[in-house]
Amino acid sequence: MSNISLYYKNVTADVVGAEHGISPKQFDELAEQTKPLIEQLNDQRKAGQTMYRELPYNEDYPAQVKAVADSLKGDCENFVVLGIGGSALGNIAVQTALNPYMYNMDENQRNGCPRLFVFDNVDPVQIASFVDWVGDKLDKTIFNVISKSGRTAETASVYLVIKKLLEDKLGDKASQRIIATTDAKEGTLRKIADESGYRTLVVPDGVGGRWSVLSPVGLLSAAVCGIDIDGLLEGGRQMDKRVTTTDFYNNPAAINAAVNWNFYNAGKPISVMMPYCYALKDLSDWYRQLWAESLGKTKDLSGNDVFVGPTPVKALGTTDQHSQVQLYREGPNDKLFTFLQVKEFARDVVIGPEPACAPELGYLAGSKMSKLLNAEKVATEYALLKDQRPCMTVLFDKVNAQTIGQFIYLFEVTTSITGLLFDINVYDQPAVELGKEATFALMDRPGFEEMAEKITPVAKLDDKYIV
Amino acid sequence: MSNISLYYKNVTADVVGAEHGISPKQFDELAEQTKPLIEQLNDQRKAGQTMYRELPYNEDYPAQVKAVADSLKGDCENFVVLGIGGSALGNIAVQTALNPYMYNMDENQRNGCPRLFVFDNVDPVQIASFVDWVGDKLDKTIFNVISKSGRTAETASVYLVIKKLLEDKLGDKASQRIIATTDAKEGTLRKIADESGYRTLVVPDGVGGRWSVLSPVGLLSAAVCGIDIDGLLEGGRQMDKRVTTTDFYNNPAAINAAVNWNFYNAGKPISVMMPYCYALKDLSDWYRQLWAESLGKTKDLSGNDVFVGPTPVKALGTTDQHSQVQLYREGPNDKLFTFLQVKEFARDVVIGPEPACAPELGYLAGSKMSKLLNAEKVATEYALLKDQRPCMTVLFDKVNAQTIGQFIYLFEVTTSITGLLFDINVYDQPAVELGKEATFALMDRPGFEEMAEKITPVAKLDDKYIV
Repeated sequence: MSNISLYYKNVTADVVGAEHGISPKQFDELAEQTKPLIEQLNDQRKAGQTMYRELPYNEDYPAQVKAVADSLKGDCENFVVLGIGGSALGNIAVQTALNPYMYNMDENQRNGCPRLFVFDNVDPVQIASFVDWVGDKLDKTIFNVISKSGRTAETASVYLVIKKLLEDKLGDKASQRIIATTDAKEGTLRKIADESGYRTLVVPDGVGGRWSVLSPVGLLSAAVCGIDIDGLLEGGRQMDKRVTTTDFYNNPAAINAAVNWNFYNAGKPISVMMPYCYALKDLSDWYRQLWAESLGKTKDLSGNDVFVGPTPVKALGTTDQHSQVQLYREGPNDKLFTFLQVKEFARDVVIGPEPACAPELGYLAGSKMSKLLNAEKVATEYALLKDQRPCMTVLFDKVNAQTIGQFIYLFEVTTSITGLLFDINVYDQPAVELGKEATFALMDRPGFEEMAEKITPVAKLDDKYIV
Repeated sequence: MSNISLYYKNVTADVVGAEHGISPKQFDELAEQTKPLIEQLNDQRKAGQTMYRELPYNEDYPAQVKAVADSLKGDCENFVVLGIGGSALGNIAVQTALNPYMYNMDENQRNGCPRLFVFDNVDPVQIASFVDWVGDKLDKTIFNVISKSGRTAETASVYLVIKKLLEDKLGDKASQRIIATTDAKEGTLRKIADESGYRTLVVPDGVGGRWSVLSPVGLLSAAVCGIDIDGLLEGGRQMDKRVTTTDFYNNPAAINAAVNWNFYNAGKPISVMMPYCYALKDLSDWYRQLWAESLGKTKDLSGNDVFVGPTPVKALGTTDQHSQVQLYREGPNDKLFTFLQVKEFARDVVIGPEPACAPELGYLAGSKMSKLLNAEKVATEYALLKDQRPCMTVLFDKVNAQTIGQFIYLFEVTTSITGLLFDINVYDQPAVELGKEATFALMDRPGFEEMAEKITPVAKLDDKYIV
């Protein structure tokens, strides 16, 4: 069995010094503060308040997802997700992690599965380019619209573009090319799907978008692209066993949460996730949403103004060594680094011999590339530690469905515990509402005239400040 | 003629309040502080200390680049850049900005130009996937190795993998498939190129990697992919005219620099660049390097410890509204936002009619998608301003070669001026050296045994801290 584990020695005062590290005494204090919160979270779970925790145990969802995926075989060369936020970032992350880099471009590497596209924006130039390409392939293309309500403006807009396109080209058969993943009973998309006869899957109740990747939201595109969804769910269950214990020092989510919370309060409000593995790079985007929407909150649970929230930053090793590491080492010591490191890569490449005229490259020749990649990770960490920058590492034995499932579950539970430490509600996102209403107003939606008036000073540019 | 301009009203105290905004008096103070620095920068330029400023005026480089690009016609279906940092991020940014989204996958949208790939990492799984695909296409593939010295470990490693592959498959003809962009006279890659008979282009002296996109480093891949490189350079010259004036309020680079410097010092160390345009998204990565490596510095010019450096963050509208905006509005007010907004998109898409059962989507139906995208930008900005978060916008009349050239030049000169405000050297990157040496040590390079010993405590995991 492959596992992930958390390595946290390099956040200790022993390694990065008393000013920037956590002493044994402080760690014990963190343990004392966190223990009752683990219990509290376990109680919340029993009370049905953290429904995302049960997704890996649900047997209906994978069965439904597989049935739909099977029904597409032979009929689907392109699978296109229309969703945004939690209805896109998990799908992208799982695909990048578990399918080959050239998946979309190389039929051989797809093993008969369809290409995958995810549209999580409303950019006309991007969509027009895609429509040009897909226009004569619509009868071999499936669109998976994902939205709990169906009223998310971005997803709804792209859906309406695609719906028109399908109807113009395929007529009555258009509805066969759309699968809706939405609320089981109500909402705009449920209504449309039932009226139109779309195949549907369910966005579970009580599971917010950013916690939904292990539900049909994230599982369908994965299954369709040949990913072992049972393995993903198994990974979730494996991690679940490790994150319920109130034994702080044996609970990776508790330690992860406590370390993150500690450094946020200790003048390090920026949290950098830096995978040393191309396949893991989009997990950082998934994490960015989970972290930012869950922990970025003005009010604590008693209603006091707290304005908390670490800023998550996505970086990639080795690429960002040549972009960000200068700042990370020499700039303000205001960051906690979380590396993702892989012990055994699924494939390897041997670096060729050096030319005779360039013996200075001899140290690379004949080495496995995985050795170089992991050497660069340790070298970067070493350099950061020299400058007292605290570092953690999530170690992956391998990158496979189980370890990705473990990672997802680890960071979800970490987020829940971190929220309890901050004493905030991690499950809502009240601040996105105003932007939605302002969009309605700017799109001339009836009922938002008053709002439109308020926005005018922002919408109308003031020449005095244009240079 | 299409232009870009900077809109900065929404950083003023008028809009975001006295605590978080800049008052007219403060703006005048910033103008006073910045004016002499613009002069100083103009003097540095005359003294030949900012050679990047002259790149748009060089006539040899575009001629050489076009000659090489022309020589590839009919012989090149795939163009592969091997480079990292400044030898990759500009290439990627220009390609995403100026070529269609489906460029690599749609022959029609490429207009006879080759596919473009950029490898700026040493990930074995990623490279193996690409080698599987390209293995039988090598005689129609060109590899452009970009490195001033040729000793950058990542670029050298991937180059050695490709060199072996080419020699195994093409024998004597391997050297015809490689173009080296490197130092004119010396260094490892120059030596190899001359010995092997590669075609070469020059990395100019006195222009650091992150300032080199308008040199052959960035221009060759652009020209090969059909991008108007004369337009890029023209854009640079157009902006140059606007950023030399000591009239602060008419100099967009000076205002951009002063605003950024001001907010860094006023408790906003995070700088978010958020394009509302998919094509502009990778300009944020190019900017991330320029900003972080140039401004992240421990020492000022007098040698005092200052530990400065804003942390650049890449975001994308509308996508990140559903990921980061909750934090941006409700979390700490520690960020300056720079939006990129496009007035006239190159293409547009009309949103289809709403289904009869879903009149609540009627407000979208029949609208142009560009209207929605720009409405969401203004809506997000409005919501941020309600919470006193300062915002700037770079307005693009259109996205084309000229405006991209203008943007590049604007942010380069902005960086130079910001560095003078911080009183630091923006042209070096001393902190990346230690990591390079540590990598040598971990790769068992002779001469680095002592370093290897120092790293051992980091390289060897301590079981006590694994959970």
